[in-house]
Amino acid sequence: MAYILSVFAVRNLLVLSLALNVSLILRVLLLHDSQDGSFNGFFFAEQKEEALATKITRLSSSVLPSSSSLTMAQGDEDRVINLDHGDPTMYESYWQKKGDETTVVIPGWQFMSYFSDATRLCWFLEPEFAEQIVRLHNVVGNAVTENRHIVVGTGSTQLFQAALYALSPCAEAEPISVVSAAPYYSSYPLITDCLKSRLYKWAGDARSFSKNGPYIELVTSPNNPDGFARRSVVNGSEGILIHDLAYYWPQYTPISSPANYDLMLFTVSKSTGHAGMRIGWALVKDEDVARKMTKYIEINTIGVSKDSQVRAAKVLKVISDNSEGPNEGDSFFEFSYRVMAKRWKQLREAVQQSGLFSVSDFPPQLCMFLNRVFEPQPAFAWIKCEGDIDNCESFLRGKKILTRGGKHFGVSPKYVRISMLDRDKNYETFVRRLSTIRS
Amino acid sequence: MAYILSVFAVRNLLVLSLALNVSLILRVLLLHDSQDGSFNGFFFAEQKEEALATKITRLSSSVLPSSSSLTMAQGDEDRVINLDHGDPTMYESYWQKKGDETTVVIPGWQFMSYFSDATRLCWFLEPEFAEQIVRLHNVVGNAVTENRHIVVGTGSTQLFQAALYALSPCAEAEPISVVSAAPYYSSYPLITDCLKSRLYKWAGDARSFSKNGPYIELVTSPNNPDGFARRSVVNGSEGILIHDLAYYWPQYTPISSPANYDLMLFTVSKSTGHAGMRIGWALVKDEDVARKMTKYIEINTIGVSKDSQVRAAKVLKVISDNSEGPNEGDSFFEFSYRVMAKRWKQLREAVQQSGLFSVSDFPPQLCMFLNRVFEPQPAFAWIKCEGDIDNCESFLRGKKILTRGGKHFGVSPKYVRISMLDRDKNYETFVRRLSTIRS
Repeated sequence: MAYILSVFAVRNLLVLSLALNVSLILRVLLLHDSQDGSFNGFFFAEQKEEALATKITRLSSSVLPSSSSLTMAQGDEDRVINLDHGDPTMYESYWQKKGDETTVVIPGWQFMSYFSDATRLCWFLEPEFAEQIVRLHNVVGNAVTENRHIVVGTGSTQLFQAALYALSPCAEAEPISVVSAAPYYSSYPLITDCLKSRLYKWAGDARSFSKNGPYIELVTSPNNPDGFARRSVVNGSEGILIHDLAYYWPQYTPISSPANYDLMLFTVSKSTGHAGMRIGWALVKDEDVARKMTKYIEINTIGVSKDSQVRAAKVLKVISDNSEGPNEGDSFFEFSYRVMAKRWKQLREAVQQSGLFSVSDFPPQLCMFLNRVFEPQPAFAWIKCEGDIDNCESFLRGKKILTRGGKHFGVSPKYVRISMLDRDKNYETFVRRLSTIRS
Repeated sequence: MAYILSVFAVRNLLVLSLALNVSLILRVLLLHDSQDGSFNGFFFAEQKEEALATKITRLSSSVLPSSSSLTMAQGDEDRVINLDHGDPTMYESYWQKKGDETTVVIPGWQFMSYFSDATRLCWFLEPEFAEQIVRLHNVVGNAVTENRHIVVGTGSTQLFQAALYALSPCAEAEPISVVSAAPYYSSYPLITDCLKSRLYKWAGDARSFSKNGPYIELVTSPNNPDGFARRSVVNGSEGILIHDLAYYWPQYTPISSPANYDLMLFTVSKSTGHAGMRIGWALVKDEDVARKMTKYIEINTIGVSKDSQVRAAKVLKVISDNSEGPNEGDSFFEFSYRVMAKRWKQLREAVQQSGLFSVSDFPPQLCMFLNRVFEPQPAFAWIKCEGDIDNCESFLRGKKILTRGGKHFGVSPKYVRISMLDRDKNYETFVRRLSTIRS
């Protein structure tokens, strides 16, 4: 991406960061008590105490060296650990190590227009980002890009809505049913029914769906929350499928072959860890569907942030470059594969030590990209409280571990989903605490 | 914004830009014919020919010196001029002149989390952006910010939908009516009815609305498309108002006093010209409404691009700094006021020379910010075809001038809306061509 020039001196950055850090910490410490905003959780309410901890951790782990006296002082064992949402802050350390390789510089007069390329079907898609999407899929081998239209979205969340809009029949008297096999991603029902649309409506667990006529089935593979590979389950003839492949990347699961479906969703949040960019993309076979998805995003937000597309293009480029280059061992997917492998090992040990929980085993498979056989190591742990603990979420909340309970995913409250993507420090505290929990 | 460092050498940029420019132009010229994507217009379809012209103009006016042989060669009088959408590319030249003052540098490991500040009601709002919003409103004096919650959105388009979601009564059996006085912004009906929500529905021109019970009235002031200052017009007791103040800035209209309404929408697209950022903000009095708007944006897109917020903060800061500093005469609002004044003068002369069109006069008023009396000079011209031309849009299309016809704004097709914010070259060609049109 020649528009964006990496002209950043790491040393300058460090000096400025440290100066900044002092002022920010002072601001947090001095001004915090005067703030009156109450915290509105990320889909579910959490305590302000935890929010403050998160804030301080963010500052310290992104700006300071890793052992900050500020976070340590708070008392590690009393600290609330929030693993409810899948905030991928685990990846910060890798990108920090990469220094200025992924730094973007955007002059004030660039990317001002609504349009990225008015000759494209998706006129708000930055050409360089489109190019890097295709390249990365080809490098990793996780999706077919030939004869596909790319639609960019404000995260894959917006693309999911764009797909519902595009796939719903216009002329039907009643809304089309939207289903997914339980446990399904907790946001699907919320998003689908948010505006009480007459075009589509949430119809619950795909396994118990037996209505005649057209329906939309969401297939998340690997699945959020439980990490298993999935195929469609409804046995209807008029099903339309949306494949959410947010987690089909080699740090989470062996890449067995390029996914080749009609409508596939991806997001940088879970592939590169840049959730704050709010960038996702869809690979769409049917031109008319791609056109309608583009129309939805036009009506919903008149396109997608150019700045974030440009930054995402840079990040994807560096990942592809490093995966193909001589420093392959230091590549993004090698790093993140190793972190996930270590974390899953720690988790299984903690679960065994505690004796109160259980977690699934996954069959090992050959990853064509990493050229190695391994068991899936999902972005979320899907944990069951054994014995007579009926509500695992509230049980763990009592231990100051915030998780998302099974009922939000359409199953028993004996299950919880736990993010595996938090920063090292939080993850270490979590597994240590989990291992000591007794009934 | 200390996270973002202006360390950019203008000379380096220029050299690289020129090299880049050569390669991009070659790409456009060599590869263009092989592209098969057909152009999906910005709300309304336009010709591919025009799209290509736009693309080349974009490259030339943003990267090359202003007189590019490439655009001139195409034949100025045959060129399609697209003034349908309000793409604010007029502002590029100002920001280009400002050089590195508004350049942002974002390292790859920054702004990765979903969260900006988990202790805030709007947890995805970057604190520095919030600060600069308040500062700019205080500098310009166009809105009261005390005791307001700020909600950031992916443009004000998303905030409008967030407001509908937040203001719709949950328990009602039938959708709440959404109205606005004609001529109203053409996107309001499209956005409101896009998903056929059971929460709200478009109910047309506010002036003919007489239903009992609650309703939502959109008040756009200055109005899009016609530029007039507005107040609510429905005489009901249960009205809820949304004030769209996208154009309440001193380049478009005299700032008579700070707007002081319950729910006010703003956007960088029309204030600073950075449409590609997709950043807007709402000033909201009621905490519960602000919380629901935040929830909608959480469900719709899980927040708003951090990169664009950070860039917007920088741009707003430079505008405030320059408005208050010693170089006040070179400030953003002085520049853009002068451009708009010149363009409106040219437009009125062209309308007079042609004799086929008419355009409204506006009463002059004192602007408290610029400390000067002037007539509004809106971002759109609202032009009427006089005589026996019934469809002004199609008449002007025949002259290769693309506009948006009155029917999209709920009024007669004798009217068209014309963007006044295109680049100098396009605007000059437009007024020259308009002045020569005879019946």
